[in-house]
Amino acid sequence: MQQSFVRATYLIETPHEPQRAAAIMAGEQSTGTFVAVPGETDEVKARSAARIVSVRLLEIVREPSLPGATVPAGHNGDYYRCEVTLDFPYANFGPSIPNLMATVAGNLYELQEFSGLRLIDLTLPDEFVEAYPGPKFGMAGTRRLAGVYDGPIIGTIVKPSIGLTIEELGATVRGLAEAGLDFIKDDELNASPLFAPFERKVKAVMEEIERVADRTGRKTMYAFNITGDIDELRRRHDLVLEAGGTCIMVSIQSIGLAGLAALNRYSQLPIHGHRNQWGMMTRHPMLGMAFPAYQKLCRLAGADHLHVNALNSKFYESNASVIRSVEAIREPLLGGYEAVPVLSSGQSAVTAAETYRALGTCDLLNVAGGGIMAHPDGPAAGVRSMRQAWEAARQDVSAEDYARSHPELRRALDKFGRPQVAQAEKEG
Amino acid sequence: MQQSFVRATYLIETPHEPQRAAAIMAGEQSTGTFVAVPGETDEVKARSAARIVSVRLLEIVREPSLPGATVPAGHNGDYYRCEVTLDFPYANFGPSIPNLMATVAGNLYELQEFSGLRLIDLTLPDEFVEAYPGPKFGMAGTRRLAGVYDGPIIGTIVKPSIGLTIEELGATVRGLAEAGLDFIKDDELNASPLFAPFERKVKAVMEEIERVADRTGRKTMYAFNITGDIDELRRRHDLVLEAGGTCIMVSIQSIGLAGLAALNRYSQLPIHGHRNQWGMMTRHPMLGMAFPAYQKLCRLAGADHLHVNALNSKFYESNASVIRSVEAIREPLLGGYEAVPVLSSGQSAVTAAETYRALGTCDLLNVAGGGIMAHPDGPAAGVRSMRQAWEAARQDVSAEDYARSHPELRRALDKFGRPQVAQAEKEG
Repeated sequence: MQQSFVRATYLIETPHEPQRAAAIMAGEQSTGTFVAVPGETDEVKARSAARIVSVRLLEIVREPSLPGATVPAGHNGDYYRCEVTLDFPYANFGPSIPNLMATVAGNLYELQEFSGLRLIDLTLPDEFVEAYPGPKFGMAGTRRLAGVYDGPIIGTIVKPSIGLTIEELGATVRGLAEAGLDFIKDDELNASPLFAPFERKVKAVMEEIERVADRTGRKTMYAFNITGDIDELRRRHDLVLEAGGTCIMVSIQSIGLAGLAALNRYSQLPIHGHRNQWGMMTRHPMLGMAFPAYQKLCRLAGADHLHVNALNSKFYESNASVIRSVEAIREPLLGGYEAVPVLSSGQSAVTAAETYRALGTCDLLNVAGGGIMAHPDGPAAGVRSMRQAWEAARQDVSAEDYARSHPELRRALDKFGRPQVAQAEKEG
Repeated sequence: MQQSFVRATYLIETPHEPQRAAAIMAGEQSTGTFVAVPGETDEVKARSAARIVSVRLLEIVREPSLPGATVPAGHNGDYYRCEVTLDFPYANFGPSIPNLMATVAGNLYELQEFSGLRLIDLTLPDEFVEAYPGPKFGMAGTRRLAGVYDGPIIGTIVKPSIGLTIEELGATVRGLAEAGLDFIKDDELNASPLFAPFERKVKAVMEEIERVADRTGRKTMYAFNITGDIDELRRRHDLVLEAGGTCIMVSIQSIGLAGLAALNRYSQLPIHGHRNQWGMMTRHPMLGMAFPAYQKLCRLAGADHLHVNALNSKFYESNASVIRSVEAIREPLLGGYEAVPVLSSGQSAVTAAETYRALGTCDLLNVAGGGIMAHPDGPAAGVRSMRQAWEAARQDVSAEDYARSHPELRRALDKFGRPQVAQAEKEG
């Protein structure tokens, strides 16, 4: 039988000879290689040793990116930045995300031979498909439940992020549903506050959503933040399902990839995956993990929707990086695992044209806070202005031209068109 | 009723006026403050706004630590490093680690106003005690199960880390148990490999452990790496318990704090917490989280044992940092939550004296690989040399002096006494 491998690609920085550094990585994360371990026989190595696929020198720098690296004797001051690709025998961990992570990440970040180490991509064997069924809804299922068959799904976040009583929340949701939003979400700060516990929140929100749906025939998708301990996830999922809700949201880093996978095993609703806390694993360019690797794990574990920030957001991330993230999510994984990129932060009618030009697709969820709520003619006009902006972009008409016959877009461009204004707000 | 808060302390770096930067943090992670949000009433603020406790300028640097920070107009090139302490209303999230994390960490790391942000400490209100019962065994319970009532618990890791068949594993464990080890653990790479699945591993290991115990009267504690998906944790815990095992091990980052808390709700065994992958959250000094904060979360979630690297290890971490980690774990949390620091990597009889001098306690688990296995007279002599080294340290006798009447220690000092030798190996 042919051996299966997980292929992992890293960006490393090391004062050591790159090939030797790669051998240390492979050894540390499999059978141990660079000192003799009793029992590390040829059979053990053949079965379990990680293999170096390639080591490619990218550049030489003179200052270490991270502290704590020890240099070899007679070090000339050079630090080698390389792309290292390793193959890890699949049999070492089997179809298990938790054990995969202990292998491809594990202790690597702490090794003193490295002044930088970042996991940049993963290629998984087909054996993972059976263990992790992945998203049950993706774009098609989300469109069906949200009743949006054309253009991006336009969404917003309940604001203030935290602090509304049940009564205030109900009134806010009513206003948003009446404004014609396709999608509303809880903030990641708002799951089950003591003054607005989850169960009452679901009841109040769904009453408003259903009442508006009865009138308009369209049921807004509401992503309830069910983030909590493992047993709470199930209870809260069931509450949302029983109340007729159509989406649940989790902070992926809060429940862990294992928690997400557990939720996905019984979930009957699209899972809106928020990536808060992810910044600590990715913001330093020579440490942690890059999004192309992370998003595969999230999709494998069952995220139907996945946040990627947005163009011109309030976050540190460059537009180029956001575009790469969306492209990564849109690339099929093991033949499927379709997930919806969620663009959120600093969004308004102004951002549609550039976003569509960069991405070439409307298969996404575009979430705006101030860009909808702060529209001079109110949230309904805000929603319309967003749709108009996307229509213009898709017809390759400039927003300015389209605005001549679309007053809501005109007003949005006037209000949000100045640089930076769209960024000065908080989005969940 | 008096309002409860979680107090969080951060190290930040920002090109903005520090007080304003702190206000942005507080706003982003609670009700939003620096732009008006409709509905952010005085009542909402009183209920839910985070409060700035203090902002203390530490130093001014001229280069940003992390990329992506935007500078204010007319920026003079200074970046302010400050300690910022914030109070978050407990009512916003309640007794929930997952929702606590979305609040105290959340989106903070990605904000463009910061070129560095690190969570350095957390103070939790008593309300968490009821929700999270914490470690069931700690030091006292572990000593009882391991039968070690004096001195540190001396342990080792099965090597090679991964690749042994069931038969090879059985023979290895037999040798280690016969060598008189108090504690043996799986490597974090080794949970349920396809060629040695968990169920068979437990059976083979426990047969050997029990057979040696029948002869010697002492049952070695074996930490079975049960890391896996959430449902697997329970199944594997039950298998170990039924087989008469006395410890389970998890990769905390692999199962998440929520996974750990779920495990702890039904676990009847000490939970050995391995912190692999943690490096990516902590290695950059201006990003992520510091161990004093992290270890509180791990203990709260139920870790009985917690890895801290070790003095003179193969890892990047300084000895001073390791000492701080042990001290942090030994400090009572909410009146209890006793956990055992696990010192592992580069350990041998040589490291005992310095470790005891620095820590002043034997209430720890000292794990050595090569320091035991590579002893010139075999593992049993290796174990004895470790115990002798700790005895000498506790009696304030130099290892050299003590070695005159303790040949195993003599041989260990000769072999491992040269600098760096003890570091050139892999420890789990």
